[in-house]
Amino acid sequence: MNTEPSPHPFLELDEVVHQRVRLGILAVLSEASECTFAVLRNELGLTDGNLGGHIRILEQAALIEVHKGYEGRRPCTWLRLTRKGRTALRQEVAALERLVTRLRTAESDTDP
Amino acid sequence: MNTEPSPHPFLELDEVVHQRVRLGILAVLSEASECTFAVLRNELGLTDGNLGGHIRILEQAALIEVHKGYEGRRPCTWLRLTRKGRTALRQEVAALERLVTRLRTAESDTDP
Repeated sequence: MNTEPSPHPFLELDEVVHQRVRLGILAVLSEASECTFAVLRNELGLTDGNLGGHIRILEQAALIEVHKGYEGRRPCTWLRLTRKGRTALRQEVAALERLVTRLRTAESDTDP
Repeated sequence: MNTEPSPHPFLELDEVVHQRVRLGILAVLSEASECTFAVLRNELGLTDGNLGGHIRILEQAALIEVHKGYEGRRPCTWLRLTRKGRTALRQEVAALERLVTRLRTAESDTDP
């Protein structure tokens, strides 16, 4: 077993970004310059309430920007990643890569 | 933009396994045949209460086994992955790899 005091990659994961639904929101927003609430909800298969709650958390952490307006006569909410959000997602991806690499190594060590 | 109806890799993530602390517990347990509560708590930098709560959730999902005994005179709790837990962790790692690949692709498409 590794006895060095190197921190476990788990410790690099940020709860705000790592949480399943929030990671999904950030992932979808990273693939477009902007996205409507409705498109995001359908892409991720979420309810309005669930999506709305996680959007508030991401907005409070300044990881996304929300602006409201109209598409024709219908009210519409647009969402986009902030620069801070893009950086946070990159850090999460890098941490996940380190975790996956470590787990794949452990797997090949323990497999018969 | 991709307009195919292929499901987003986010949808493959299982909340029980993906949650940050629980993923850390499963990761550490995957690297040893067995681990004590104290070692796990120290490795992950958690409080007894936080670790205990997540252990109950993993035990109820049959992803880990918990057994209590004594080490000398001191009570001690041992934890280990079940076969189901090892499979669930593998599925999470595979889903994370697909998500990371997709995000890395999006990143290289949007970067200047």
